[in-house]
Amino acid sequence: MGSIEAGGTKFVVAVADETMQTQERARIATTTPEETLGKCVAFFEAHPVDALGIGSFGPIDIRKDSATYGHVLATPKKGWQGADIVGTLKAALNVPIAFTTDVNASAYGEYRVGAGEANHSLVYFTIGTGIGGGAIQDGHFIGGRAHAEMGHTMVVPHPDDHFEGACPFHGNRCFEGMAAGPAIEKRTGQRGEDLSRDNVVFDYVSYYAAQLAFNTYLNLAPEKIVFGGSVLSDAEMPKIRKYVEQLNNNYVALPDLDELIVRSQVPNNGSATVGDYAMAADLLK
Amino acid sequence: MGSIEAGGTKFVVAVADETMQTQERARIATTTPEETLGKCVAFFEAHPVDALGIGSFGPIDIRKDSATYGHVLATPKKGWQGADIVGTLKAALNVPIAFTTDVNASAYGEYRVGAGEANHSLVYFTIGTGIGGGAIQDGHFIGGRAHAEMGHTMVVPHPDDHFEGACPFHGNRCFEGMAAGPAIEKRTGQRGEDLSRDNVVFDYVSYYAAQLAFNTYLNLAPEKIVFGGSVLSDAEMPKIRKYVEQLNNNYVALPDLDELIVRSQVPNNGSATVGDYAMAADLLK
Repeated sequence: MGSIEAGGTKFVVAVADETMQTQERARIATTTPEETLGKCVAFFEAHPVDALGIGSFGPIDIRKDSATYGHVLATPKKGWQGADIVGTLKAALNVPIAFTTDVNASAYGEYRVGAGEANHSLVYFTIGTGIGGGAIQDGHFIGGRAHAEMGHTMVVPHPDDHFEGACPFHGNRCFEGMAAGPAIEKRTGQRGEDLSRDNVVFDYVSYYAAQLAFNTYLNLAPEKIVFGGSVLSDAEMPKIRKYVEQLNNNYVALPDLDELIVRSQVPNNGSATVGDYAMAADLLK
Repeated sequence: MGSIEAGGTKFVVAVADETMQTQERARIATTTPEETLGKCVAFFEAHPVDALGIGSFGPIDIRKDSATYGHVLATPKKGWQGADIVGTLKAALNVPIAFTTDVNASAYGEYRVGAGEANHSLVYFTIGTGIGGGAIQDGHFIGGRAHAEMGHTMVVPHPDDHFEGACPFHGNRCFEGMAAGPAIEKRTGQRGEDLSRDNVVFDYVSYYAAQLAFNTYLNLAPEKIVFGGSVLSDAEMPKIRKYVEQLNNNYVALPDLDELIVRSQVPNNGSATVGDYAMAADLLK
């Protein structure tokens, strides 16, 4: 199987053996669609695969019955609006292709071989430069006419957090505006990785992650809620669980939160790659 | 097919012909489980059905692989905690039984013959004495280890709305605490149906319904978001759509909101009954 992690800065292409161990990998800078996808094709011509999974930056069209399925939709990324990722690769490589968002690919990786293994349902959040979420139930992505944009759902500010927010669309009204990397940097003047984990900003971020988890549990009741991305560390997980208890206030019967709310489990930040492989493997069944 | 709308005050039992037209119907006061379910059995012995759909008050266990599937879980309703609704009816009637929440039953009714007809995905909210939500994608209810409790997800108060909230668990932090019937009555001293639709409280309620719709669209991107229940009228629908536009602030590409956000369409408040019939009919396929 092959994997493409299609990002706004770089594309990571990789091939795996049948046990999903990566055999070859390359990074391709994201320039024009023609050049970038051309280099992807060259890689897979040198390292042939029988199926390909792609997790892409967005917004993208993932409705299989749509005329623009597999295309990038309205994006500020220069040259990429309307780019036909799936069509271009399919024409060149002639293999089955699975196509979803980058965060859905990570969710699927966690679902198949990470934190969600042996579970039926999982929601994965990444909190990094942005915030995204992907949900899976019984092997299927949840999502109707578009992919999820969970990071921009509405957030209730922590009572002590008077930050004006960093989302250009929603200010302090959405999770991304309050808890993603740029929100931490705008608050503190420092990048999150340079701050002590005792900084109050990580208490706020834990509170917002707890809101995401609480709302998600009430909306979808997944068996696992997984946090990935660069902002959270193991240190925040007990705080998140504590805040979820507080927010629930004994309303619903919560499962064991140590089991429900966990950090991503696929090693080496590999959730998306493994998810791409698994999606590709599914096409061959 | 048969339908049971199992409520905390009354059970409504009904039988339909093969075109889902109700032929017989009865109301049974909710007393003890033995008496109430006994009267349900007597009704269906007098009016036999080949399959039965039940939409029940909760919390209930809807996990088919659970030892307490079909039971009522922790409820303040006297005598009903642990009541085995499905087991009792199955033992007496010996027909296939579909069992879900009351709001999921309404969602399925709208999905199959109401607002969602010809669509692949739908989320239904009822705003009445409480607030509940049910979601369907490709014919399946969304929900993992428990049913949804969407009414208790977190709400951002309207800037002018300083109400302390009416939810005993979450005060003014959840939708039910701010927008359900009791919240309207606690604010105004009057029942919603006795108030002018120009009362500012309906502007607030529209704002909260818009938050539910906005968050739901970002989480699930359904093709239809349907509002039922006694609190909202047609008068609020344009306000809800206007607030959704404001909350989104041109972030995601929203579909036509007149098509996306609609009132329940099954006539005579019949979404749940029709949903029960449709679930029962599915069991016979």
